[in-house]
Amino acid sequence: MSAAIDELQAIIAELKSELEEQKTTTRNARERIERMSAEVVDSNPYSRLMALQRMNIVKDYERIRDKAVAIVGVGGVGSVTADMLTRCGIGKLILFDYDKVELANMNRLFFTPDQAGLSKVEAAARTLSFINPDVCIETHNYNITTVDNFDQFLSTISASGIAVGQPVDLVLSCVDNFEARMAINAACNEKNMNWFESGVSENAVSGHIQFVRPGDTACFACAPPLVVAENIDERTLKREGVCAASLPTTMGITASLLVQNALKYLLNFGEVSDYLGYNALSDFFPKMTLRPNTQCDDRNCLVRQKEFHLRPKPVEKLVEVEVSDEPLHACNDWGIELVADNVPTTTTKSPENTNVAFGLRLAYEAPDKSEKSETTATAGDGVSEASLEELMAQMKSM
Amino acid sequence: MSAAIDELQAIIAELKSELEEQKTTTRNARERIERMSAEVVDSNPYSRLMALQRMNIVKDYERIRDKAVAIVGVGGVGSVTADMLTRCGIGKLILFDYDKVELANMNRLFFTPDQAGLSKVEAAARTLSFINPDVCIETHNYNITTVDNFDQFLSTISASGIAVGQPVDLVLSCVDNFEARMAINAACNEKNMNWFESGVSENAVSGHIQFVRPGDTACFACAPPLVVAENIDERTLKREGVCAASLPTTMGITASLLVQNALKYLLNFGEVSDYLGYNALSDFFPKMTLRPNTQCDDRNCLVRQKEFHLRPKPVEKLVEVEVSDEPLHACNDWGIELVADNVPTTTTKSPENTNVAFGLRLAYEAPDKSEKSETTATAGDGVSEASLEELMAQMKSM
Repeated sequence: MSAAIDELQAIIAELKSELEEQKTTTRNARERIERMSAEVVDSNPYSRLMALQRMNIVKDYERIRDKAVAIVGVGGVGSVTADMLTRCGIGKLILFDYDKVELANMNRLFFTPDQAGLSKVEAAARTLSFINPDVCIETHNYNITTVDNFDQFLSTISASGIAVGQPVDLVLSCVDNFEARMAINAACNEKNMNWFESGVSENAVSGHIQFVRPGDTACFACAPPLVVAENIDERTLKREGVCAASLPTTMGITASLLVQNALKYLLNFGEVSDYLGYNALSDFFPKMTLRPNTQCDDRNCLVRQKEFHLRPKPVEKLVEVEVSDEPLHACNDWGIELVADNVPTTTTKSPENTNVAFGLRLAYEAPDKSEKSETTATAGDGVSEASLEELMAQMKSM
Repeated sequence: MSAAIDELQAIIAELKSELEEQKTTTRNARERIERMSAEVVDSNPYSRLMALQRMNIVKDYERIRDKAVAIVGVGGVGSVTADMLTRCGIGKLILFDYDKVELANMNRLFFTPDQAGLSKVEAAARTLSFINPDVCIETHNYNITTVDNFDQFLSTISASGIAVGQPVDLVLSCVDNFEARMAINAACNEKNMNWFESGVSENAVSGHIQFVRPGDTACFACAPPLVVAENIDERTLKREGVCAASLPTTMGITASLLVQNALKYLLNFGEVSDYLGYNALSDFFPKMTLRPNTQCDDRNCLVRQKEFHLRPKPVEKLVEVEVSDEPLHACNDWGIELVADNVPTTTTKSPENTNVAFGLRLAYEAPDKSEKSETTATAGDGVSEASLEELMAQMKSM
């Protein structure tokens, strides 16, 4: 009898251990790696990245471990962005989101149906740590646009870099609304931090990325979209049939272009695009540079603009101006520059005629035509009305 | 005593059930869905895709369930391609690969470290079925380039479509070597099937997709790359330090562009690109159309060319020719057409001067210059030597 009990208890011990193993096996798929190695063996997760050095693309790839990136919005674009940076072996990722994973998100990459109901930052952090335990993942499960949370957001991006008290190296905006973009913009203007804005259109067939360097390129408030969704509950919008379409392809391209340009910036290779658009229907990729609006509503943007003008310019910057000799209407592959502060005044549609659908509102009033002569174009840059209309169309589809 | 045994047995039963649940929970995250619904609720995985109809992008999105796609190569590009099509709710996916998942693949999306050692098709099929149980996944774990396997590959793509005995709707090549591309090309020329070729460069900073419609656009044998890796064991190549670099970004963009164009073709929206390149360093996206080589080595290509010329042309095709009025050197965004069969003869570098690195060989001898007058340019299409050199450079980096 007592022998039988011993046997049963042995079975219980075995089952418990198997259950424990089953639960933890997916948490520890590989050990942490102290230093990145270039050794070409199947077991080295960094061999193909370190090969970028031998291919003369990147000098000292391992510097990526000294970089911290904040990702705001961990949805269709943000989650793939985090996945790529994690697989590239970034030093630290700080994730911000306050949404939950839903089955309705399964038409985009990254999240899996079993994660439905989990907070996006928690679900993402689990998957990312599992994929690459070498990356430090920090999560913030709140809406950055409320007053208290904004302060916390501001202090996090400006003091949670790799070194204690230092800012992160880059902020990536992967949010889906106007208010959050304006909050990131305000924070980065205040702290003088570079960031990338990204977005996909609600018809799922276009996207863009934009590099904001306070004072140097236009900030989000310099040329905000003309039409934005009203500040009403997202769920109401969805039920009213304004639910946006989305595709894993368009989200994937936007995230890939975002991370590729972030890598070029962080590891100093290739040319970082200031603005890169994507139109899926025609495979068209417009490129341009937006200069700051001298009458921007953001006070810190004006401060950064002054600082930028006082800064000594590197020689490369002057050479870039020559590019504007290219024909204006041919294409934007050669970095044709548009001046953002002319945008409102050259818009041909008046706000009254703009076809604003239910649930949308004009974000601001277009300035009076008479102000036109006061806005200053950057000397030497080409400005064309047709191109500006295209730009406005892109901005509207944000 | 007997009560204690009952209690222990109850514990065992409970632990067994918990263990079983733990093992299967990740296999059945959601039930299968009979019909795609456009209902906007958090629990509907298809709401954002069906919204493409309301946005006037796609008519009858649910037709995607009647489509079967073969993906050859389930690596950095193929796995993401399969992931996207699965999340889009494709009817059937047929995966071909004979490689195993390694930790060295973790710098690209999709596979996870716990899958190291599994065959790529098996690991992919598990993940894909878990993400979307509505998709029918079929796997083939063999190298398509051997004689026997080639026959099996040929019969699979031509008879394993949605309807029994019908061909798949599209073949996507996501392989990383010359022989496999030539095998897919031979199969699709023989069976008169449309396919997309894709590739990323070994320095990880460029990629491309190419749409091959037998007889209509150039096949892979019409203008093959000039330099290819020798047919030696891949592992040897890796050890000798020729290991290719790769980035999740470049692989992600290539896969996204591939699937986006596959969706446009399968669901009939937007314009499908014939050739679309991507240069990561400058964010440049060349576009062009390659016409078939009238002296192509593939006998079936010549048959398809004859058939194509006898086929009545749709009116849209004739209109396209007008596009070649655009300036030749400005950019390729407007579909400037290059004639593929001139490529070898206009190459300025002779094969002797080509800088062929260790482990590489010339794939074929460039024809004698005297043959130049015999190659026929398609009437009305612009041909420029400078552009052809760019094209060759792209081909070489495949």
